[in-house]
Amino acid sequence: MKTLSDHVSVLVPKLQNWRRDLHRFAESGWLEFRTATLVAEELRQLGYQLQLGREVIAAEARMGLPDAETLRQQEARALAQGALAQWLPHFSGGFCGIVATLDTGRPGPVMGFRVDMDALDLNESQAADHLPQREGFGSCNPGMMHACAHDGHTTIGLGLATVVMAMKVQLSGVIKLIFQPAEEGVRGAKAMVEAGVVDDVDLFTAIHLGTGVPAGELVCGNDSFLATTKLDVHFTGVGAHAGGKPEAGRNALLAAAQATLGLYSLPQHSGGVARINVGVLQAGSGRNVVADTALMKLETRGVSNQVNDDIYQQALRVIAGAAAMYGVEYQVKLMGAARSCTPTQPWVDFIHQQAVALGEFNSVIDRTAQAAGSEDATYMMERVKQRGGQATYLIFGCDLAAGHHNARFDFNEQVMATAVKTLATLALNQAQFGGGQ
Amino acid sequence: MKTLSDHVSVLVPKLQNWRRDLHRFAESGWLEFRTATLVAEELRQLGYQLQLGREVIAAEARMGLPDAETLRQQEARALAQGALAQWLPHFSGGFCGIVATLDTGRPGPVMGFRVDMDALDLNESQAADHLPQREGFGSCNPGMMHACAHDGHTTIGLGLATVVMAMKVQLSGVIKLIFQPAEEGVRGAKAMVEAGVVDDVDLFTAIHLGTGVPAGELVCGNDSFLATTKLDVHFTGVGAHAGGKPEAGRNALLAAAQATLGLYSLPQHSGGVARINVGVLQAGSGRNVVADTALMKLETRGVSNQVNDDIYQQALRVIAGAAAMYGVEYQVKLMGAARSCTPTQPWVDFIHQQAVALGEFNSVIDRTAQAAGSEDATYMMERVKQRGGQATYLIFGCDLAAGHHNARFDFNEQVMATAVKTLATLALNQAQFGGGQ
Amino acid sequence: MKTLSDHVSVLVPKLQNWRRDLHRFAESGWLEFRTATLVAEELRQLGYQLQLGREVIAAEARMGLPDAETLRQQEARALAQGALAQWLPHFSGGFCGIVATLDTGRPGPVMGFRVDMDALDLNESQAADHLPQREGFGSCNPGMMHACAHDGHTTIGLGLATVVMAMKVQLSGVIKLIFQPAEEGVRGAKAMVEAGVVDDVDLFTAIHLGTGVPAGELVCGNDSFLATTKLDVHFTGVGAHAGGKPEAGRNALLAAAQATLGLYSLPQHSGGVARINVGVLQAGSGRNVVADTALMKLETRGVSNQVNDDIYQQALRVIAGAAAMYGVEYQVKLMGAARSCTPTQPWVDFIHQQAVALGEFNSVIDRTAQAAGSEDATYMMERVKQRGGQATYLIFGCDLAAGHHNARFDFNEQVMATAVKTLATLALNQAQFGGGQ
Amino acid sequence: MKTLSDHVSVLVPKLQNWRRDLHRFAESGWLEFRTATLVAEELRQLGYQLQLGREVIAAEARMGLPDAETLRQQEARALAQGALAQWLPHFSGGFCGIVATLDTGRPGPVMGFRVDMDALDLNESQAADHLPQREGFGSCNPGMMHACAHDGHTTIGLGLATVVMAMKVQLSGVIKLIFQPAEEGVRGAKAMVEAGVVDDVDLFTAIHLGTGVPAGELVCGNDSFLATTKLDVHFTGVGAHAGGKPEAGRNALLAAAQATLGLYSLPQHSGGVARINVGVLQAGSGRNVVADTALMKLETRGVSNQVNDDIYQQALRVIAGAAAMYGVEYQVKLMGAARSCTPTQPWVDFIHQQAVALGEFNSVIDRTAQAAGSEDATYMMERVKQRGGQATYLIFGCDLAAGHHNARFDFNEQVMATAVKTLATLALNQAQFGGGQ
Repeated sequence: MKTLSDHVSVLVPKLQNWRRDLHRFAESGWLEFRTATLVAEELRQLGYQLQLGREVIAAEARMGLPDAETLRQQEARALAQGALAQWLPHFSGGFCGIVATLDTGRPGPVMGFRVDMDALDLNESQAADHLPQREGFGSCNPGMMHACAHDGHTTIGLGLATVVMAMKVQLSGVIKLIFQPAEEGVRGAKAMVEAGVVDDVDLFTAIHLGTGVPAGELVCGNDSFLATTKLDVHFTGVGAHAGGKPEAGRNALLAAAQATLGLYSLPQHSGGVARINVGVLQAGSGRNVVADTALMKLETRGVSNQVNDDIYQQALRVIAGAAAMYGVEYQVKLMGAARSCTPTQPWVDFIHQQAVALGEFNSVIDRTAQAAGSEDATYMMERVKQRGGQATYLIFGCDLAAGHHNARFDFNEQVMATAVKTLATLALNQAQFGGGQ
Repeated sequence: MKTLSDHVSVLVPKLQNWRRDLHRFAESGWLEFRTATLVAEELRQLGYQLQLGREVIAAEARMGLPDAETLRQQEARALAQGALAQWLPHFSGGFCGIVATLDTGRPGPVMGFRVDMDALDLNESQAADHLPQREGFGSCNPGMMHACAHDGHTTIGLGLATVVMAMKVQLSGVIKLIFQPAEEGVRGAKAMVEAGVVDDVDLFTAIHLGTGVPAGELVCGNDSFLATTKLDVHFTGVGAHAGGKPEAGRNALLAAAQATLGLYSLPQHSGGVARINVGVLQAGSGRNVVADTALMKLETRGVSNQVNDDIYQQALRVIAGAAAMYGVEYQVKLMGAARSCTPTQPWVDFIHQQAVALGEFNSVIDRTAQAAGSEDATYMMERVKQRGGQATYLIFGCDLAAGHHNARFDFNEQVMATAVKTLATLALNQAQFGGGQ
Repeated sequence: MKTLSDHVSVLVPKLQNWRRDLHRFAESGWLEFRTATLVAEELRQLGYQLQLGREVIAAEARMGLPDAETLRQQEARALAQGALAQWLPHFSGGFCGIVATLDTGRPGPVMGFRVDMDALDLNESQAADHLPQREGFGSCNPGMMHACAHDGHTTIGLGLATVVMAMKVQLSGVIKLIFQPAEEGVRGAKAMVEAGVVDDVDLFTAIHLGTGVPAGELVCGNDSFLATTKLDVHFTGVGAHAGGKPEAGRNALLAAAQATLGLYSLPQHSGGVARINVGVLQAGSGRNVVADTALMKLETRGVSNQVNDDIYQQALRVIAGAAAMYGVEYQVKLMGAARSCTPTQPWVDFIHQQAVALGEFNSVIDRTAQAAGSEDATYMMERVKQRGGQATYLIFGCDLAAGHHNARFDFNEQVMATAVKTLATLALNQAQFGGGQ
Repeated sequence: MKTLSDHVSVLVPKLQNWRRDLHRFAESGWLEFRTATLVAEELRQLGYQLQLGREVIAAEARMGLPDAETLRQQEARALAQGALAQWLPHFSGGFCGIVATLDTGRPGPVMGFRVDMDALDLNESQAADHLPQREGFGSCNPGMMHACAHDGHTTIGLGLATVVMAMKVQLSGVIKLIFQPAEEGVRGAKAMVEAGVVDDVDLFTAIHLGTGVPAGELVCGNDSFLATTKLDVHFTGVGAHAGGKPEAGRNALLAAAQATLGLYSLPQHSGGVARINVGVLQAGSGRNVVADTALMKLETRGVSNQVNDDIYQQALRVIAGAAAMYGVEYQVKLMGAARSCTPTQPWVDFIHQQAVALGEFNSVIDRTAQAAGSEDATYMMERVKQRGGQATYLIFGCDLAAGHHNARFDFNEQVMATAVKTLATLALNQAQFGGGQ
């Protein structure tokens, strides 16, 4: 009988092909039309039972969705780039999520594995020495680039699907593979949670490549993500000629300036790391007109959900007060959100021990450095834990050409096989897990 | 029969004595206890019918009243300095207003003359060459000084009372002399208006000495005052240890800082001069405590009541919004108010012609320079005009030792006799006034 | 001999044609390539001596110039729309100014007449009942529209050129017709002044149509413009991940917010009307990045040059301080400027008398309502006066379809003939002007 | 031979007397004139070698010193309350520090023990059930109260001095007892460090009672203090009449408001806890005057010296920029400072082991909860460590009547004997300490 290693060895060239194809046709959040159709077809061919689009994404819970015109144009673009027409209707309108299920028929827990599929809003480097350009798989979509390794994550998901199906006779319980859209900006996971996709998951595992972890190292219970809320605030005042009738205006730009200063006074908290950032402010139309509009794009973060929620609630108060100061209207739009990341220790311990036994890592650790970024798989982790399940977040260290979100980002593709092998091991050996009971 | 000049000539030494006594025992707004008792006694002896204290001051309409303890202490101080015990009960508690009426029994209009009695909160210069010190009548009350000539105004009121009573057989109609407290900070006039003291006045005249007008000049229809509103804003937040529990605080100091910046954005108005000033800000108790209190003392001004009211209404909005930003409570206390100054032209014209005929002035003009300060006699002018009467504000030019509100302020006392003569002339000749009908 | 009226009567259809052609091919400031070549050709045919482009525009003194790419594209657009290739090189690169001179050879003063040629950055109304659309001369250039009557002004300039040349034997002295680019945003006049175009002008007259003055009325000495300075401020900070390394950033958005609040505290001035407006603020690139750039578009205004300069100097101080607070760099770019408008009374009086005599106006007045907008012909007026000349600014009242700067703006074309006649009268009768000596 | 327990037992009533006397005559920072003379006399009688006043306090390094008049008055007050005249000259002018040395003549390390002597600026509760009132030792000095147990610390210092001297034949090396003024506001330690008092110390121990640690518990290596800097900022602008000449002012209040908002934007730091607080803001003199002065009392804090220094440096930048915005002068006065607290582990371990062996504690731990407050003994710890020594900070848990800095604060006096016994044990057993080598 073929071993796991045998299965993975065979898979290596396929992993590279998949990844490079996804990289070349990078698609930003909620616009993963081509990606999703290819993933769906692959999983169907493998024999998975599929849930697609609105079945796995709650429409109202989607955050930071592009406008209808963009969705329409990008769907056309995807089709022109090889999206499979038979699958497209499922994803149309910004519903690019897929859940693939394999029920072994044997008793056992439901294991969930989550990967994300979206690219960043970024132009990829055109430099000749940038490997994706040299090898001819640089992004052909302007303003979209896989600079955070989600192409790798999706590929690992497909690899895992392949191996798991091939070895299904050795498995028990249920395997659920979750392919999520719009992780960038932490916009997509909540909508999948609200659709119930992890409501039956007992053992949940999300993954990431890189993030500064050295090649050969595995982090089994990463908790280095901050809870966060992303919001857009639109102030609407009243314009007026600034020279002739200044008192007739209601100044949205001033409201935004006051709000900004007020917001930055918030993040001091005894609960630990707290952050606020007004990253974008766009106000006014003409030099000699009292500004009647202002848009602020901001985010709060906290080391815990409590801290983030405290800052967020205070931010809403600051915004409302600043608008009131100038008699301007305002609207707050939730654009993204994630929770803090707190893996369950028994599941972390089990993975730790399995990874050591696997012998593929130089170093296996539980936790790594200080909190900074955010990740919306945390919504799935939180739901799984609320229902009594185990959950964790793995980081597979690997060499990077440049940091995440950089136009020259690239990762060493060898890590993908290692990841597939590790995750498949968990599926194969889960019966040994004593659980968190 | 003695002429007006004869009457005034006799009065000159008395004017000086009165003025110097009032200067020596300077009393700040609402605390004119000694002054008021002496004025009342003088007017009683002359034979005027008197209305006192609560009869001429509406308690609820008083603005910027000192606290009860200060009122009590200052009343005791006044008594020790020669206030007449028999009159004091009328004025006790901050009611130092007097209206003296002479009804000639002959048909004719009601003429009202208004003078003010209060000193400034200022320490008088101790310099040996400061005339009041050299002549021994420097203020003996620390923090109180007649640096705006109200001692002169009160004296002119007493001088006018003397001459008018002496010449009453030549008069017709009714003469009302109004002695007002608390003009500084524009706090007292509104309360007298609300008590109805000018409701029957047909011809109203308020006066001031100096204000930059040169000696020998009379301004007959001064309109160089801005409408204004004075307010104190008390923010009340929640204290917290700034190192240990910063998120537990509600920062009143920050609310005040935001409010301040918001307030200064207001005074641009197509209606003309608009002003705002946060003159005082006092916040917080300890360096390491989130400030739970803040007090702002501010004022709005406008070239017209409309402009001032617009700025004031917007200021209230700014204050409310800033408090809301930080979740702090706030209270706005009205501390003073005055209206814009717009004399009625017929009465100005009459005075102009009388003043020229009098032959005491080098120059008689209607209006003078640009608006800046404020004056609450404007409340009386407004009420008189609302009821169809005539009203104006005179400025008697005179030499000053230093500018108003300066610790070395002093004025040339000769102007007092001129003012008495001018005002008495109006009383004597009013029958010639055709009126604004 | 043909009278002035005869000459103007003949001209009426031509005026309409010119105006409608200019309106149809509206060109924004510094981009008047087509307009300038047609004007130049017309003036050459009439026999004027021409100074063009860099001869009449000091390159370094141009303010608010579009970028090189825009200039290049617009020049191509103009050529495609009928700009005359032989004249284009003179204007290429943003030098669309023309001065046409007629030296009569007879002794007499130099008379200067200034008109402006640029359109606004505005989309013209597409409404069927908007007359320019109904008559087929709506702007064919997106984002450019003659909504401030400069098409009329240029037409009047051409009409005046025609009549003056036709009647030259009756004239003495020198006639200078100045066609200015980029009046919108008050960007162009200073560069013409710096090139010396009014250095020899003794009698200067600038004109405007409409501006709320009723049809049939002439304002001979308009002073209702505010001095102004337009500036762009670019703050450059340092970006950083807002969650991971906030202290590494230098926040340009915060610097701009502080600067904005500081700027609005400035315009309280005893010298009269003072204004500031931050009309546009654009800052930051991403929600989760400390903003490293901010752009503020602002303007100061003042009833006098002194007031405007005071506010402007303080604004520079505020901006520098705000940048220093956050350790960000900044650059101030002057984008436009105009002076206050103070006509010389003798020239105003002469025009007043001539206009009354002309019998074309229902009403001839010297001044009109309150200050509000700005106009850079004031730079020319100032220079002329500095050298001892006379200068004024005329407003020809006319009916408007909608207010200036409105997408439905249009004016009754009859006023153009009236204006030509009035200005020509001044040229014909200037010998009667006693002068301001 | 008498044991340590024997010595301490005898001392108990004396400890109570000392403590209650010190409590009754509470003296605030730099004003510990009476306390210092009594301590000096006691130590002299015990036979210690003394260094006093300027010998142990670097004049220029003192922070937050009261003004000369206050120093003079308080010295007189102290004399009237029993300060010993013979010692007073040493401490006059704000130099109330004492170092008492016992050189055993036997080889061994220099051990330093530091206690502080100052009270808080607080009125002690007058409640009858407040034990110090009930027992008749409530503070007789208004506005001064031992509400942070420094009376206990000084007493422990005297108790330790007594026991150590009594048992000196069993000791080796050198014992240095350091009595520090002005710990509140973290003002005094730096001046003692600069005078070199810990330059020869090998084993340094500072102590505190209470701070939330339960009775019966000892914290051997407390690190729960934040580095901090305290500063006063004086802005000096130019006053002006807010109605008449607003542009002539330079508004110190506005500079302070802008600075405040800027300061609160600073404390987001990847290095960990960062804090800023503007606890007090006092600006302006009159409602209608452009404020010409403003005083901000603020503090920065950081989990490490680096974080605090980063925030502090940025705060200086913000302050300078805000002053520049309004053209006002400013002066920054350092009012206090402390370092972060990082004990050396070998010395902590030794104390831990000794404390357990002593058998007086229910619980002996190394570290306790989260950082919040600050303590300037950290300056001494830092200097000792820089020179290769060992240093720690002990907290002796005890029952409190109310929290620190509360007007009803009181502590259970039994802890003082325990503390003396523990510290004496360290002196007796130090030879067993292997050191940090």
